[in-house]
This record gives sequence, structure tokens and C-alpha cells, in this order.
Amino acid sequence: MPLHFTSEQRLDDGVLVREFTLGEIPGTLWTPASADPAPLILMAHNNGLPRSADRLVARARHSAACGYAVASIDSAGCGDRPRTAADERARADLRRAMRAGEPADEIFESLVGSLVERAVPEWRATLDALLALPETRGPVGYSGWTAVGIHLAATEPRVAAAGFFAGGYVPRAQREEARRVTVPLLFLLQWDDEGNPRQRALDLFDAFGTREKTLHANLGGHTGTPWFEVEDGSRFFDRHLR
Amino acid sequence: MPLHFTSEQRLDDGVLVREFTLGEIPGTLWTPASADPAPLILMAHNNGLPRSADRLVARARHSAACGYAVASIDSAGCGDRPRTAADERARADLRRAMRAGEPADEIFESLVGSLVERAVPEWRATLDALLALPETRGPVGYSGWTAVGIHLAATEPRVAAAGFFAGGYVPRAQREEARRVTVPLLFLLQWDDEGNPRQRALDLFDAFGTREKTLHANLGGHTGTPWFEVEDGSRFFDRHLR
Repeated sequence: MPLHFTSEQRLDDGVLVREFTLGEIPGTLWTPASADPAPLILMAHNNGLPRSADRLVARARHSAACGYAVASIDSAGCGDRPRTAADERARADLRRAMRAGEPADEIFESLVGSLVERAVPEWRATLDALLALPETRGPVGYSGWTAVGIHLAATEPRVAAAGFFAGGYVPRAQREEARRVTVPLLFLLQWDDEGNPRQRALDLFDAFGTREKTLHANLGGHTGTPWFEVEDGSRFFDRHLR
Repeated sequence: MPLHFTSEQRLDDGVLVREFTLGEIPGTLWTPASADPAPLILMAHNNGLPRSADRLVARARHSAACGYAVASIDSAGCGDRPRTAADERARADLRRAMRAGEPADEIFESLVGSLVERAVPEWRATLDALLALPETRGPVGYSGWTAVGIHLAATEPRVAAAGFFAGGYVPRAQREEARRVTVPLLFLLQWDDEGNPRQRALDLFDAFGTREKTLHANLGGHTGTPWFEVEDGSRFFDRHLR
């Protein structure tokens, strides 16, 4: 699949922002001002946000300003991508269950499980295409969506370090795969995340197979992660990708 | 009580290390190379280690090189200070209970509770004496021994930020006082700390009253804290003491 850049913008700090398409996959690549190949970070977001969301863009810009090439895609069924009839049904079921205060785990399992299955090959294709560019290089970092990241980190030898955000449903298949993650890991938890049980996140942290894992937990709800965690994330990658 | 400096050494990086006595209290003060008054960090260690222990000294040197004045004391019953007959009895009881695999909470409660009661006024006297020096200034940071730090942070308005290490018994009085801690807090936990139940540490993190609290947990036992946490600790103080 050929990668096409569709737009290009140079920011004040020299960071180059390019929209691209890779087949049906729309993505954004941020690269630092320097002409040297930069270690690539895959910045994957959960299905609820488009890659253009302000706080995702701010994180990507920060990492690019720190010297990383950062890539983000809207994977199948996420962002503005078309949703399948099954996705729409699962989302409607989910809204109904949440309103009624009914357990939603099985609906999450089916909705998120299917999104993850479709996201993984798209992220892998993106990784292949971007590493072929002269402006990026490995070792590769992964940041964000836990379920997709568990599978990539466990199966993709080019991923050398991963930062996961605990705020999202992790399907059973990926919870079981967690022990196969052996790269250095930074796991970011919001202590009072409304939709994501704390104990489940702590159990997942416990389950990761890597010997080098760090948990950062901050008070507050799902969207309350303090900005200094973005800086800590950059330093985590500095330790493992440089 | 007058403070007496008893020795003085200038390190390669310009940090000045001075031993002092304040009445019966032996202490060490590390100050940065710069002549400007530096924000003071009280670096309190649990009773098991003397302040001369290598890893405590390394932490203090790092913070001083980052521009802080760092003070450490051996409080009553700690380090090389004489132990009371009650302390010796409690320590013997503790060793017996640990060997026999018996519950030791009540022994810890009495031993550590008494050490904390004696440590707090000594740390407060140290704070008074050191802030009177031209080379130190507030706001003051606190780092280390959780039980002593909870009481100081809850009652001492000059303490503006605290980093606690979860690896030590926290008496009931300080566990109850935790909700009165309202300064920014960094809580450092070793995930597999042999002598310190993980759930108790997580409950304590939950109990702190401050809105600005961060938990850092790393895999490994009591003494396995990775060095990058020392650097993270410095940046935490940079955010709150500068």
C-alpha cells in the first residue's frame, strides 16, 4: 500500500505536520525540525476520539518538539471512519445499558474486541510504511490505547517501549496477552476514572510480563491527566529509544 | 538550641556537605554550589538506616546538584542514636515474630509509633534552625519517611510539597491524619515490597486529602526503586518549590 501525503504544515517550533493516507487509513505524521531520522512513536488513541482532538494533537506536538517522529491514525471504525452496522448496534446497546445502569462488560467485549482486531493490522501497515521513510527510524515506541498496544508490544519486535493509558476497556484476549509484554512499560492511570474500574487496571498492571514496568496514577477522572505526565512520557521514551 | 557545624567538605560538583549537631541531633546539610538561598528539602529516612547510607547520600547529592539545600538527621532511636530499653524490647519482639511468621502489626505500631513521636519535634527543631541560615529558604519540601512526613505535612505550613516512600509501617494515628495532608504529594511504591502490604499502601494513597497526588509504582522489592525516580522526585519539587 503506498503512503500519500495530502497536506503539510510547518509549525513555529519547526515541527512538520503532514496528513497522509495509506489505503483507507487516514493519519497524521509529526516530525521534528532536525533532518536526522527520528525514533518513531505510534500514538494510538481509543476509539472515542478522532486523531484531531486537541489533547492528542498537543501530546504529539510535544513529543515531536522533543525529537520524535509521531504518528497517529484513525483506525477502522474510529474517528470519522465509517462504522459497521454491528459497531452501530453495539454502540446503541452500550448507551442503553449505561443509561439503565446495567452491566456493559459483554457489550464492551464485543465492540472493543472487534475494533482492536481491525486496528492492529492497520497500525502494523502504518508502522511498515512510516519506517520506510528516511525521516523515521526504530527503535519504535508505542503510546496510548492499551488493548491495541498490548497486542503490538507482544508480537512486534520493532516496538521497544510502550506507554499505555489505563482508561479504556481491555478485551479478555488482550488481558491474557498482557503477560507476553516484555518491553519497558509506563502505565498511566486516572485514579477516579468513571468508566474504568480501578482494581481492573491495577490487576492489569500486575499481569504485564515485563520486569521493567512503572505505574503512574493521578487523582481525577478520565480526562484529568495532568500535563506533566506528557513530559514524564517523553523522558520514559528518552530512556528507551535513544 | 544552637546549630553547630562539625565538618565541611566541598564535592567535585561544587556541592557543600556539612555535618552538624543540634543539641543531641546529628545531621548533614548538603547545599548547592550557588550562593543564593536554596529551597530546603527535609530528607527523612525510616529508622532502619543511618543517614550515611550510600543510597540516601546519593539522593541528597543529586538534589543538591539540582539546586536544593538538603537536610538529613538521625532522629531519636534511629541510625547510631542510643535506643531506649523499650525500643530494644520491641525490636527483639519484632525479630521473634518475623522468624515465627507471626503477625507483627501491634509490635510495629508500638515501635514505629514511638519513633515517630520522638522524630517529629526533632525534625521541627531542625527545620527552624536550618531556615535561620542565609543559605536556605522556604517553601520547604519533605522527602522520605511517610509516617513522620504525614504529621509534618499536615501540621507544618512551611512544608509545601511532599514525596513519601511507601515502604514502611505507618502507625494508625498517621493513617488517620493522612486526610489532613493537602499539599502536592508524590507517593512512591515498590510493587513487591516484602514487608509492606501493597493494598495498605494503595489504601493510604487513596486516603490522602490532597487533590494533587501522584502514585509512582515500580516492580521489585523494598530496595529496588529505580534511579530515575530520584530524578522524577527532583522534577516534582521543581514544580512546587520554585
